[in-house]
Amino acid sequence: MVKVADDPDTHIGGRTLAIIAGPCSVESMDMLRETARGVRAGGARLLRGGAFKPRTSPYAFQGLGASALKMLASVRQETGLPVVTEVMDPRQVETIAEHADMLQIGARNMQNFSLLSEVGKVQRPVLLKRGLSATITELLMAAEYVMAQGNRDVVLCERGIRTYETATRNTLDIAAIPVLRKETHLPVIVDPSHAGGRADLVAPLTFAAIAAGADGIIVEVHPNPAEALSDGDQSLSIEAFGQMMRALQPFAEAAGRTLPESALVTAAA
Amino acid sequence: MVKVADDPDTHIGGRTLAIIAGPCSVESMDMLRETARGVRAGGARLLRGGAFKPRTSPYAFQGLGASALKMLASVRQETGLPVVTEVMDPRQVETIAEHADMLQIGARNMQNFSLLSEVGKVQRPVLLKRGLSATITELLMAAEYVMAQGNRDVVLCERGIRTYETATRNTLDIAAIPVLRKETHLPVIVDPSHAGGRADLVAPLTFAAIAAGADGIIVEVHPNPAEALSDGDQSLSIEAFGQMMRALQPFAEAAGRTLPESALVTAAA
Amino acid sequence: MVKVADDPDTHIGGRTLAIIAGPCSVESMDMLRETARGVRAGGARLLRGGAFKPRTSPYAFQGLGASALKMLASVRQETGLPVVTEVMDPRQVETIAEHADMLQIGARNMQNFSLLSEVGKVQRPVLLKRGLSATITELLMAAEYVMAQGNRDVVLCERGIRTYETATRNTLDIAAIPVLRKETHLPVIVDPSHAGGRADLVAPLTFAAIAAGADGIIVEVHPNPAEALSDGDQSLSIEAFGQMMRALQPFAEAAGRTLPESALVTAAA
Amino acid sequence: MVKVADDPDTHIGGRTLAIIAGPCSVESMDMLRETARGVRAGGARLLRGGAFKPRTSPYAFQGLGASALKMLASVRQETGLPVVTEVMDPRQVETIAEHADMLQIGARNMQNFSLLSEVGKVQRPVLLKRGLSATITELLMAAEYVMAQGNRDVVLCERGIRTYETATRNTLDIAAIPVLRKETHLPVIVDPSHAGGRADLVAPLTFAAIAAGADGIIVEVHPNPAEALSDGDQSLSIEAFGQMMRALQPFAEAAGRTLPESALVTAAA
Repeated sequence: MVKVADDPDTHIGGRTLAIIAGPCSVESMDMLRETARGVRAGGARLLRGGAFKPRTSPYAFQGLGASALKMLASVRQETGLPVVTEVMDPRQVETIAEHADMLQIGARNMQNFSLLSEVGKVQRPVLLKRGLSATITELLMAAEYVMAQGNRDVVLCERGIRTYETATRNTLDIAAIPVLRKETHLPVIVDPSHAGGRADLVAPLTFAAIAAGADGIIVEVHPNPAEALSDGDQSLSIEAFGQMMRALQPFAEAAGRTLPESALVTAAA
Repeated sequence: MVKVADDPDTHIGGRTLAIIAGPCSVESMDMLRETARGVRAGGARLLRGGAFKPRTSPYAFQGLGASALKMLASVRQETGLPVVTEVMDPRQVETIAEHADMLQIGARNMQNFSLLSEVGKVQRPVLLKRGLSATITELLMAAEYVMAQGNRDVVLCERGIRTYETATRNTLDIAAIPVLRKETHLPVIVDPSHAGGRADLVAPLTFAAIAAGADGIIVEVHPNPAEALSDGDQSLSIEAFGQMMRALQPFAEAAGRTLPESALVTAAA
Repeated sequence: MVKVADDPDTHIGGRTLAIIAGPCSVESMDMLRETARGVRAGGARLLRGGAFKPRTSPYAFQGLGASALKMLASVRQETGLPVVTEVMDPRQVETIAEHADMLQIGARNMQNFSLLSEVGKVQRPVLLKRGLSATITELLMAAEYVMAQGNRDVVLCERGIRTYETATRNTLDIAAIPVLRKETHLPVIVDPSHAGGRADLVAPLTFAAIAAGADGIIVEVHPNPAEALSDGDQSLSIEAFGQMMRALQPFAEAAGRTLPESALVTAAA
Repeated sequence: MVKVADDPDTHIGGRTLAIIAGPCSVESMDMLRETARGVRAGGARLLRGGAFKPRTSPYAFQGLGASALKMLASVRQETGLPVVTEVMDPRQVETIAEHADMLQIGARNMQNFSLLSEVGKVQRPVLLKRGLSATITELLMAAEYVMAQGNRDVVLCERGIRTYETATRNTLDIAAIPVLRKETHLPVIVDPSHAGGRADLVAPLTFAAIAAGADGIIVEVHPNPAEALSDGDQSLSIEAFGQMMRALQPFAEAAGRTLPESALVTAAA
């Protein structure tokens, strides 16, 4: 079990599902605050938000950087939601670790061994995303790079692999969940937003992931997906996120899991 | 909705999940009878069994052929379970249609257009498996080959696609289920046995498939998987099948579905 | 060595490269005749032409069928070029074998085992194309299905495999050529037209294939690619084919091969 | 054209093919010196050698690090061969740029955007390898990350992509060469060692690459491949490298290219 904060609802790998939600990129203080409150009301207990964004093109929006880190820290203060954000450069690790509660290693950096070693040296849980065409074995070996430096708090994330199919952005390798559960003690969560690349697929992929044994999800939510600066096609609105969480409840139960406490309250209301 | 027989539990695409189970290949009358009784007790309402087997090597076991067809028809008589079996050659269609209730087109023949046209001309529902590297669009176009000949009773089957990952036999494209549900009225089932290629993955993949919206499953069951002439690694024992069906019940409910009636009785017992 | 006709330039697998060219589909007697004369002048010694076309959609042009077979036989008479054409249905094998000199099994039918067995029973060389996502081992096993019936005259064809890359129609697996040369005595040719799916890639892929050790090529040529009923994007004009053949000459020599005799005459002119 | 050193034989992208050869990892001064002399005699004009090695497992040999850099610089002095070596961490860029003539970005770091930006800031040509499942467009965008910082001297390297085929380590995407030549002015070379992962495939893949239009190769050579600490299966012996270079000569000519001058001398001898 990986404990992101004291609140048991932020512990990943136990009976309670980890629900991480938030915008792809932090675009402004207002949108971040609105999203954080919305996803908390919907049942999320951890806030995701990109400050430094890895983009295929150097000419695309690259994130707000350091100022986004401050916004994340500030909204954490307001909402009580611990923050998960991506680190892309070994030289950023220390600074980001000061502002964030969990460090995300993105798919493109899964075999960035310098970065893996660096996050292995700090006292922050690591969310390690599977590379675009990484095997399960390679994902486990990447986790070893972190743990070999002393940091054992690694959470694995299946986020879809690259295949020939073009109907979806990636192909969610749902079988990776039970395979990983047999091969490692590390918690495994799923990113249904990147896996499908389509907002309409987020809910069914989430239900499938939990049914297959995942310990949680990390999902992109935006107050107004149509105007998102990045990944708008795959972001849920705050309302759609709430609906999905309510529909998730019976699947969580069927899987012998429970949702974070306040999500249960919300669902009952 | 595709009606394989009069029994509503054999209608595919409605509220009741279609549960198709049985051996990869029919190996003998005894094993077929034992399996059929076992899977019926576990909740299956349709019997699968290979008479003509497509094998990568011409020197591997090719199935018992015509005599297996007779065994299937005879066990159908005894158990009341309609029979699903694969047809590989346009010249076999008529004969197999006499003995079987549903004709399966295997993954390797998904774009065997002569065969598709031929099964389009008979009055038997068709179970069309997705090709090893077929796109969703190609699967839908293959179904059109059948329907263009007048036979509208086509059920699509996601059975895993070929990727670089070697931990599993294929990669179950779980997102294909919700994608297909948006693009076609045809029912969609999943084959968790071929997708994972491992008996220990059949249950989690089944739960995930139903959670993602599948209309049923087709699963390989063998009285003694260790001695199966084909696909032993991925076959469930009769007991494991029964356990899985009991565990499936809450996932079916969460998905707004129900199991075939007798499965419910069994589960309650 | 597989001998398609008496002319040594039609023997595949020896020092002389096999050059098979012609239209994707036979569209009319005029276009077929024009193409045949054009490719013969350019150095081809075998004529390809589709009579029965496997198309993803049942509503796309399916080929002229039996009448195209007659046109092919007639143009063979006029030009002396032996004919290679695809067979898609075991029931067609006998008829097509009467009109054609070499039977092609298309990529989608590589594991159509009934069809493979049927062409194994006739006295015609078989051109077996690799399936869209077939492994090299599966290709060799498919050839065994033909040879197990007594027909040893099988030529293998690498035509690109399906990958995530979308810049080309398929990904030419150039390494399959030397791998196959180590694992089988069967001749290996390459289809640069389907591999790349782009006319501008046909020449470089051809040069690469011969440099890697291929025994020949099968290439699509059309008198007016812009108006082709199928595969226009990847068809060479007659003129472009001639240019490519002239440029191929030094690569053939570098590989210890020679072009068919008249191609040499043309190149010298 | 990218000029690695003053010697015209080290300019990449002109009429003369770039031949980069050397060991996967620098294992000792003796083996490096022996290899460097051997590949120079065979016709190489640039020396590759890994100091910092990216390995899937943190427990595998990681390279000799800083001491290897010194060996490379020393052997450059002795042999006159400019040195190409991999940089894995933005904090290493400056140091490595002091010792090496060309900085290699490995496949796993193709989308390590911090690293790309950092090498974009130094005055050293960059060898950018295509990621394991990167599209051609993504490779070009990665090059933009370097060039956007002011460093225009980027050479692209096709080194095989990840597919389902297991007969080879990767699948050399030979069509990427002509596609890239149409889409960018940047030189394109090929790594036949990683593409095939087998020493016996290096020569045919090299011939194919040059025939398809590549501007050169980067190839692994080891004095005793059977005892290599890494990548022994795919390394050529010094003798095999020399043989391959002699056999390459007519293919280079057919492609309108020439080998480095001394290679010609050797070949004539």
